[in-house]
Amino acid sequence: MSITLALDAMGGDHAPDIVVDAVRAFVARHGEVRVVLVGDPERLGRLIDAAGLRGHDRVRVHPASQQVAMDESPALALRNKKDSSMRVAIDLVREGAADACVSAGNTGALMATAKFVLKTLPGIDRPAICTSLPTMTGHVHVLDLGANVECSSEHLFQFAVMGSVLAEAIDDSPSPRVGLLNVGAEAIKGNDMVKGAAKLLEGGPINYIGFVEGDDIYKGAAEVVVCDGFVGNVALKSSEGVAKMIAHFMREEFTRGPLQRLAALAAMPVLKRLRARMDPRRYNGASLLGLQGIVIKSHGGADALSFGNAMDVALREVEKAVPRRIDRRLEMLLAERGAE
Amino acid sequence: MSITLALDAMGGDHAPDIVVDAVRAFVARHGEVRVVLVGDPERLGRLIDAAGLRGHDRVRVHPASQQVAMDESPALALRNKKDSSMRVAIDLVREGAADACVSAGNTGALMATAKFVLKTLPGIDRPAICTSLPTMTGHVHVLDLGANVECSSEHLFQFAVMGSVLAEAIDDSPSPRVGLLNVGAEAIKGNDMVKGAAKLLEGGPINYIGFVEGDDIYKGAAEVVVCDGFVGNVALKSSEGVAKMIAHFMREEFTRGPLQRLAALAAMPVLKRLRARMDPRRYNGASLLGLQGIVIKSHGGADALSFGNAMDVALREVEKAVPRRIDRRLEMLLAERGAE
Repeated sequence: MSITLALDAMGGDHAPDIVVDAVRAFVARHGEVRVVLVGDPERLGRLIDAAGLRGHDRVRVHPASQQVAMDESPALALRNKKDSSMRVAIDLVREGAADACVSAGNTGALMATAKFVLKTLPGIDRPAICTSLPTMTGHVHVLDLGANVECSSEHLFQFAVMGSVLAEAIDDSPSPRVGLLNVGAEAIKGNDMVKGAAKLLEGGPINYIGFVEGDDIYKGAAEVVVCDGFVGNVALKSSEGVAKMIAHFMREEFTRGPLQRLAALAAMPVLKRLRARMDPRRYNGASLLGLQGIVIKSHGGADALSFGNAMDVALREVEKAVPRRIDRRLEMLLAERGAE
Repeated sequence: MSITLALDAMGGDHAPDIVVDAVRAFVARHGEVRVVLVGDPERLGRLIDAAGLRGHDRVRVHPASQQVAMDESPALALRNKKDSSMRVAIDLVREGAADACVSAGNTGALMATAKFVLKTLPGIDRPAICTSLPTMTGHVHVLDLGANVECSSEHLFQFAVMGSVLAEAIDDSPSPRVGLLNVGAEAIKGNDMVKGAAKLLEGGPINYIGFVEGDDIYKGAAEVVVCDGFVGNVALKSSEGVAKMIAHFMREEFTRGPLQRLAALAAMPVLKRLRARMDPRRYNGASLLGLQGIVIKSHGGADALSFGNAMDVALREVEKAVPRRIDRRLEMLLAERGAE
């Protein structure tokens, strides 16, 4: 039985063009996977023609008459946009017509709609947004990145369990190290929320290694880093900001004069490799974890390469049945707690 | 009347050696400023001899028999280390024998001791740690960086006022833009703490520009960025982590093989300039703002160059009378609030 991805083809700054471009590359890369483009049939039809995908046996269009704006309130989108490309793509997952949904649209609306349509898993109060980031030694899964700006210790505990299961599944890692993001490694450091979460995790069922600090994220000190959505969002965006500033300084220094331009020419192959290695597009595709279904959020400004990476993330989570694995782990946990 | 800096000569990972080295360069750089090295007279005496500073008319040693360990509890340090180099250096500021204190020691102990000895300014509930960071267009003052891991909206408001006064004074900027760090720029984004702080700032006496996001810190979107100490600490350390990872990747790519080493050689002058520009040592020296006196925290791992920069920060704050300016602004604010 082949896998089907439903794409919110109208969501994001450069939709639907980049979505169709991404689909062309994706179906060439993956011989079996089916793709459903959800959105305006006329616009999508024209783009599919132009991309030479007309009549492709694994690409089809599913109509949706509305679109969620990037700045629309999640509550209003949920109420008024029942035939939006976003909503219909998620509906396809609920109905079993698709195995996962990918959207570059409005994050808040995507989270609200996914929660409403798919529901959270039993034992999960709130879904979390999780992405992988590069480290000196590999990559790390960080959550939450902004879905929950006020969290309790119990929420952080649930995030930790979900992150651990995700890392196990995606990286085939039997016992991923899970760290709690804090302002210091000592037990006395931090606010009540992280201290409480640490207590819950210390007796818990995952490989909890204690507190980690901001710089540990990129050192490869843990495979999973857990924090509330406010802190995670600031950490992620600050990191992006620094990386962009460094790139900006490099451009400035390498174009300062003719000698520097010559040096840039000599160093070009190295600089290109470096850029490829740091390319944030490679890490595009954040998981909305804790739902009864797979929903992947692409960056709103994604290009085709970037969106294709988010589709790959969706495919991997389908192949590894991530929601079912989280569900099973939670069931065990709830049974243990009940038995106590 | 010349300015005097009191140095906690025994605090930090490489004290007292780097402190004495920093003093040698500092007194050569600044023709008028006096320096008091507080700590073990014998060790300091030997180092001063070796540095050729014996008998220097602007360098003297003030004895202190104890030392605060880097991992010592602030409460215990405060209670048991009344003759520590840290405590005595701060005492000198209180007594008026020095105009500012610089320490690379235990941050928590420094904050607790400074608060106990110097007291906070009227209208300030809690001092904050503020440092400047590079941006694409200049630099930005960010606070709090870890002194207060649980804050109220009122605390953030006070941080904003202090940061604004600092930027005005240090940068001769008449109306520095002050942003509140949040997970989005829209008014509906964020937690109750930042939303409440935004309300206080909107009617306030400083140039408040609204919410800024993590990446805005490095874009130069504001001259002052305000956040609680948990978020600020994670943002700062995540940023350091990314910068270190990029440096690590650059080293790896430029040493991959003989061709790459050749490219590195060609690009060396550019890479050196880039490194100098990004050098975190240039930004060493965080202010403990909100005290009745000037206390500057140097990074614990500081070398002489780095510690010297922290001394320069102290000197600038003395010259600009930062605490008095903050005090005056607060007085006006309190009078306005009283009049309402």
